[in-house]
Amino acid sequence: MAATPSQPTSRTRSWWGWGWTDAHPDDAECTAMGALLPGTLGRPLPVPRVRDLAIARPVVEPPRSLADLVSDEPRDRAAHAMGKAYRDVVRALRGRPGRIPDLVARPTDERGVADLLDWAGDHRVAVVPYGGGSSVVGGVEYRGDAHRAVMSLDLTAMGRVLEVDTVGRAARIQAGTLGPSLEDQLRPHDLTLRHFPQSFEFSTLGGWLATRAGGHYATGRTHIDDFVQSMRVVTPAGTSSSWRLPASGAGPSPDRLFLGSEGALGVITEAWVRLQERPRHKASAAVAFTDFHDALRAVRALAQSDLSPANCRLLDAGEAALSGSAQDGSAVLVLGFESADEPVASRLERAVGLARSHGGRYGGATGRDGAAAGAPSGDAAVAAWRSAFLRMPYLRDGLARMGAVAETFETAATWDRIPALIEEVRTGIGEAALKATGYPATVNCRLTHVYPDGAAPYFTVLAAGRAGDEVALWDDLKAVAGEVLHRHRATITHHHAVGRDHRPGYDRQRPEPFALALRAAKGALDPRGILNPGVLVD
Amino acid sequence: MAATPSQPTSRTRSWWGWGWTDAHPDDAECTAMGALLPGTLGRPLPVPRVRDLAIARPVVEPPRSLADLVSDEPRDRAAHAMGKAYRDVVRALRGRPGRIPDLVARPTDERGVADLLDWAGDHRVAVVPYGGGSSVVGGVEYRGDAHRAVMSLDLTAMGRVLEVDTVGRAARIQAGTLGPSLEDQLRPHDLTLRHFPQSFEFSTLGGWLATRAGGHYATGRTHIDDFVQSMRVVTPAGTSSSWRLPASGAGPSPDRLFLGSEGALGVITEAWVRLQERPRHKASAAVAFTDFHDALRAVRALAQSDLSPANCRLLDAGEAALSGSAQDGSAVLVLGFESADEPVASRLERAVGLARSHGGRYGGATGRDGAAAGAPSGDAAVAAWRSAFLRMPYLRDGLARMGAVAETFETAATWDRIPALIEEVRTGIGEAALKATGYPATVNCRLTHVYPDGAAPYFTVLAAGRAGDEVALWDDLKAVAGEVLHRHRATITHHHAVGRDHRPGYDRQRPEPFALALRAAKGALDPRGILNPGVLVD
Repeated sequence: MAATPSQPTSRTRSWWGWGWTDAHPDDAECTAMGALLPGTLGRPLPVPRVRDLAIARPVVEPPRSLADLVSDEPRDRAAHAMGKAYRDVVRALRGRPGRIPDLVARPTDERGVADLLDWAGDHRVAVVPYGGGSSVVGGVEYRGDAHRAVMSLDLTAMGRVLEVDTVGRAARIQAGTLGPSLEDQLRPHDLTLRHFPQSFEFSTLGGWLATRAGGHYATGRTHIDDFVQSMRVVTPAGTSSSWRLPASGAGPSPDRLFLGSEGALGVITEAWVRLQERPRHKASAAVAFTDFHDALRAVRALAQSDLSPANCRLLDAGEAALSGSAQDGSAVLVLGFESADEPVASRLERAVGLARSHGGRYGGATGRDGAAAGAPSGDAAVAAWRSAFLRMPYLRDGLARMGAVAETFETAATWDRIPALIEEVRTGIGEAALKATGYPATVNCRLTHVYPDGAAPYFTVLAAGRAGDEVALWDDLKAVAGEVLHRHRATITHHHAVGRDHRPGYDRQRPEPFALALRAAKGALDPRGILNPGVLVD
Repeated sequence: MAATPSQPTSRTRSWWGWGWTDAHPDDAECTAMGALLPGTLGRPLPVPRVRDLAIARPVVEPPRSLADLVSDEPRDRAAHAMGKAYRDVVRALRGRPGRIPDLVARPTDERGVADLLDWAGDHRVAVVPYGGGSSVVGGVEYRGDAHRAVMSLDLTAMGRVLEVDTVGRAARIQAGTLGPSLEDQLRPHDLTLRHFPQSFEFSTLGGWLATRAGGHYATGRTHIDDFVQSMRVVTPAGTSSSWRLPASGAGPSPDRLFLGSEGALGVITEAWVRLQERPRHKASAAVAFTDFHDALRAVRALAQSDLSPANCRLLDAGEAALSGSAQDGSAVLVLGFESADEPVASRLERAVGLARSHGGRYGGATGRDGAAAGAPSGDAAVAAWRSAFLRMPYLRDGLARMGAVAETFETAATWDRIPALIEEVRTGIGEAALKATGYPATVNCRLTHVYPDGAAPYFTVLAAGRAGDEVALWDDLKAVAGEVLHRHRATITHHHAVGRDHRPGYDRQRPEPFALALRAAKGALDPRGILNPGVLVD
């Protein structure tokens, strides 16, 4: 049995934390960050080592015909034990990772996927589909004991763009293609998917589809759902292949059943997705607001206009400070426009005008990047935001090493509920953290995506931990937030999926007849219950 | 038992044909139309009369508690026997309508719907949900004999806008609300759904949702699917109520399972839908093309641009002549822009420029409505098109009375397949009709909706009939078209749903594992199999 990593790189992925090992903050940086947060450890927890884990020998062995596709190498198995949520990182730091899979399989084609599922079904082996492993909701681990063994099904050996239709701007792409490789393969055709979640480097097309990932655009069509022409999904009951269609009214959409199915109904192996020309025109600006509620009204006006900004991210004062976009207590609205067709300066100008009419401050008079008092410059704020955006998960892990609670979660709700929802999450988590640890917590909020009828608030929580008990503390804080979301009928997840961590909220949110239908569908497609057990339905 | 028509009007709906009786062409008009089409009858078939039908007494009687909701009045029952496809109209004209339902129920609230379903389940009564009755795919009739009786469940007594959220621009609307009433109730709030299918006057919100109706916009979001925030659906297994959300990534979308479920999984009783401000700026133009293929390229360029025309309908030469948009053999592209925000003249100008760069002729130099040689004027062509669009179903019925075949069907496919697809449908139906009747057929095509990755061609077929055998002839012609669609992997329906007429094509199109899942879902939600039997799954 051999590990056969695909889409290779000279950099090393961390088995326990976010991203590249060479991008992790070192001990000194961790200590410095910890010093900013009262109640954390004086020195960082050591970086965990695979050799310190008690990794049992696999209890199953694949048949010789599949042996080449399967690895039982300890580091490989450890790296596939969990996703990359804060609670996963802490469990690794504390030497208590989730169940280590017995095997890691890397099929190279659809036949391999089907054969592996057949074998797993015959031997009561749970199969956990795995793309880039960036789940932050417990989507890629096994919890339970109803199966004889666990196999992580890593799709990244299926990482090619197979076909490009330049007339209709679409491509047939294998599910295991990681973000950067996907864009690299499209670039020669001057086309782009323009789906850039925060996990872009470490997530795959198949993962985006299985979790209904939210992407680049802050307004309009942004969920990967809207970019799907057709999908192929291998299920234990056969392979589902939908037709490549721009639109159809023929019954409930087959693709929409598998979008968001999180590996519980089948393994997505490839999809035709809609592409775009690369943008030739771009413009950005940052607008500062003294009053967050003014900013909310401005963003709503923008979302309800015809302007369609590609970027329309509203950072509250704390988030703006954290990202370096503003340090004076202002909320900051980061605006961006892009087009392959025509200059976008006039749209940006109208958007800034709309924001100013709601109390925004913009230093446009001093030039494109000029700043009035308290207002950050356009490109500078955008760059600060983007850099912080990509750096954030690494810093989270550094704070985790300092024993802190550092995690994010997101939701979405209609506009009428947004102000109270944000306020109650802030207050609820702040009070609960103070009560639990004796230290005040930081709860920041930004709107990552906005719609004419509502918005997606994204919360960052930074708090003192409870040494050795960080996971339970975070679960408690998250439960407080879950109650607020439920009270406001705000979704348990806007774009991170349900996984195992959000199941309680999801079970309360989803209509019971839909649960019946989904359970029945699962029974029909996965009659032996091997696919990602515990996800979506029991 | 009493008939309780809701949303009353002084005009009378035809029980057998399209729309209002006072809008039907009279005998002289029918005769004149027939004279234009070789091989039709010399005089029109008589308008069918309910009293000539052999309508048996209902074989079931509802309990006293439901009696007020149920009608057994013969005309009411006859009017609910079928939808309004050509084959339905002909069956009525020939005195052979589909199975007349035993009862017509008109619940006034959700409790009534649930009680009626309970009663129907207990007594093996098939329930056919019925909105405006405008199905053109056999969606609202009963075919079969597995049930003791048939009840048409007419939702139009639930026709109110219940709640309006002006902040987030959305409304909670009962499923039985007909198009005009829906817009009337929204008008005081200065909001609009802007969903205007050809059937607008005679179809309901619930019908649009159950059939994934395509709407007003020729580009971008136009299917009703995209305007749904949440839905309530009464199923025999309980009532499904999804949360009002602008977006969510929590598992497969519950709403998307019921969208397009055509009454087979449950009865949609209400929905929160997204609204818009009424447009304040509008502009339109018509561009003529000598070569249809140039026009196709122009439309594709428009669909792939940032321009987002609200109207972008391409009529081939035959369709342009039929609608009065052009009489010189030109294809005509009807363009329209609208906005609540800002003037749209510059977008129209850019769109016309793009069309001209692909060989389009536009008389813009002589003024907004000016016309160059062969190019129709803007507003005049748009008005001609709209008037013909709304008049067409009435004329179809007039031609049916002349023994002609007169029907439409629509599909969608990716751009690479569009030219050959259109040509082969034209040739295939033309040859089949000539062979069957000895007379040439007219097969016109227009693109009703266009997408960056494809388009929805809509075909109109006018041909001589085969006296007394028109339905079989049409079924034969439709089968020829179905083969072409299947060969090109073009959907069996873009926005008319599957019903019973499209089942063969649908069964070939839908992935088998999805069929398994859908069948299982149906079994879970409708275990006694009373809901619209024969639709989607058996």
